[in-house]
Amino acid sequence: MRRLRDIGEFGLIERIEGRVGARSVPGVSLGIGDDAALLRLRAGEELAVSTDALVEGVHFRWQTQSAVGVGRRAVAVALSDLAAMGARPLGCTVALAAPPELPLRRIDDLIRGIVAEAGRHGCPLVGGNVTRASETSLTLTVLGGVKAGRALRRHSLRAGDRLFVTGVLGAGALALARSERGGAKLRRVPEPRLAAGRALVRTAERCACIDVSDGLLADLGHLLEGSELGAELEVDRIPLPRGFAGACRRLGCDPTHLCLAGGEDYELLFTLPPRSPLAGSTARLARRLAVEVTEIGRISARPGIRGLPELPRAGGWRHF
Amino acid sequence: MRRLRDIGEFGLIERIEGRVGARSVPGVSLGIGDDAALLRLRAGEELAVSTDALVEGVHFRWQTQSAVGVGRRAVAVALSDLAAMGARPLGCTVALAAPPELPLRRIDDLIRGIVAEAGRHGCPLVGGNVTRASETSLTLTVLGGVKAGRALRRHSLRAGDRLFVTGVLGAGALALARSERGGAKLRRVPEPRLAAGRALVRTAERCACIDVSDGLLADLGHLLEGSELGAELEVDRIPLPRGFAGACRRLGCDPTHLCLAGGEDYELLFTLPPRSPLAGSTARLARRLAVEVTEIGRISARPGIRGLPELPRAGGWRHF
Repeated sequence: MRRLRDIGEFGLIERIEGRVGARSVPGVSLGIGDDAALLRLRAGEELAVSTDALVEGVHFRWQTQSAVGVGRRAVAVALSDLAAMGARPLGCTVALAAPPELPLRRIDDLIRGIVAEAGRHGCPLVGGNVTRASETSLTLTVLGGVKAGRALRRHSLRAGDRLFVTGVLGAGALALARSERGGAKLRRVPEPRLAAGRALVRTAERCACIDVSDGLLADLGHLLEGSELGAELEVDRIPLPRGFAGACRRLGCDPTHLCLAGGEDYELLFTLPPRSPLAGSTARLARRLAVEVTEIGRISARPGIRGLPELPRAGGWRHF
Repeated sequence: MRRLRDIGEFGLIERIEGRVGARSVPGVSLGIGDDAALLRLRAGEELAVSTDALVEGVHFRWQTQSAVGVGRRAVAVALSDLAAMGARPLGCTVALAAPPELPLRRIDDLIRGIVAEAGRHGCPLVGGNVTRASETSLTLTVLGGVKAGRALRRHSLRAGDRLFVTGVLGAGALALARSERGGAKLRRVPEPRLAAGRALVRTAERCACIDVSDGLLADLGHLLEGSELGAELEVDRIPLPRGFAGACRRLGCDPTHLCLAGGEDYELLFTLPPRSPLAGSTARLARRLAVEVTEIGRISARPGIRGLPELPRAGGWRHF
């Protein structure tokens, strides 16, 4: 079996270049192969940039995930941050660290996953770095363009704003529980809500937005941070995956905990002003954003999050 | 002794935010704290982006380097890629991975080094990621602006072009040898030649450029890659640090090897057309670039690098 050490740094870079190809991409003046990549914004745009890392043994395990899936997931999760700002993807870089004894097939699959997912979202891989390390990790930096002054910033929320979420919550944590407790392969790749974010930039008068990566409660907390505002949740309205309660029961998980604090959903949690014409009907809003949308509560002048049931344990993902 | 695990992910992010401060920076619409940072290019500029990683045990060792030095070095090395494109720094992100048992003081020093070096070059830290990992690593992504169509690309070289290098070669490898063989602390932080790169963008009619990270021969090879051109080096003209031969002798290193293949210098290696008015006198060129400049050879129509002495072993840094 061939391993990473058999091809070395430049062999790996060549493999990545080969996978990416030389096809010219609008907005990319210069891709992989020089000291830096060169990208063009459109007139009136500013740059949105976000960095995210997946580490073997912390964010993924070879035993439960395919290498293609890990690569796809790394890109999807990073792009979710651009979605939450309402930016259109321009390009991305990947810093790949791996042990020299990693099988080449695994590296090839990782790259294949990265390039496929990046391509699917119009976010070409334009550069990066490769190095050896004692465990595999992927650090993605995604670059996007957004109309200057129009990005969906967390700070722009006010008391009375209505609170919405795209898609369903709990699916990410359920897939993880299935893989950890049920021994199933983790196949789920989250869908970055890029079109919804961009539609909000184009059409919302005022919108605060965050992507739900750490769990609804934790991320709602982040949205409120520094604002002295609170939120009234209507927990019964939180949209759940089909068959969620039964699936949770079979795995011995608490469904309330999974949907409120499980994380890994990468849906957009956003606010709109109380009388926003955009939110006149949730069905119309959903058509505009090209994704299912549910109203789940309201921003209130009183700090803290209310409307919660008792939770079995405090939520969110701990990184250390 | 307090350790990283005692403060957790959000504690660490707070510490970084505290170190960076809330001072508003021109070009930065939004710094740390949202889903993505927002940066503004100037009219007529395109974006230059480069990613670079330093891994404990591969690129640095706690035994031989201070944490402040590691942080400073990570930024300097990444910025060298912007210098080699002739871009002005706009901002950077850092993905920090570290074991939970890492002493807090070390993390604080790392951050201090990153923020200080980034500040020194007008390249504010605008975002990033923190995660646990089994070894410490820093992945820097640097973002810069460069006049559209004017970046210093490797491809723009032709036969007859004159070959120049900034500063001296061998100092980086010598410092490394001193630390590895002589037991000295590695204190050297390379100086990214940002002003020189920008001056070349402003004044050179045509200029191919690369930074010398892997060693002169390896990086000259990268410059020539894909061009079917070669180079005639005048090895005797290669600018060396003061007292270089003696220092090498005392450490048992071969000075020719160190200056040609040692790497770690982060000087700019660049070409100018044969009759470029900019290169009429090397002294004037040096004033323009605000750094010592030496002419060390010529690009030739014949592939390969000529003018070399025998080398004790093949050069360049192997990453795997």
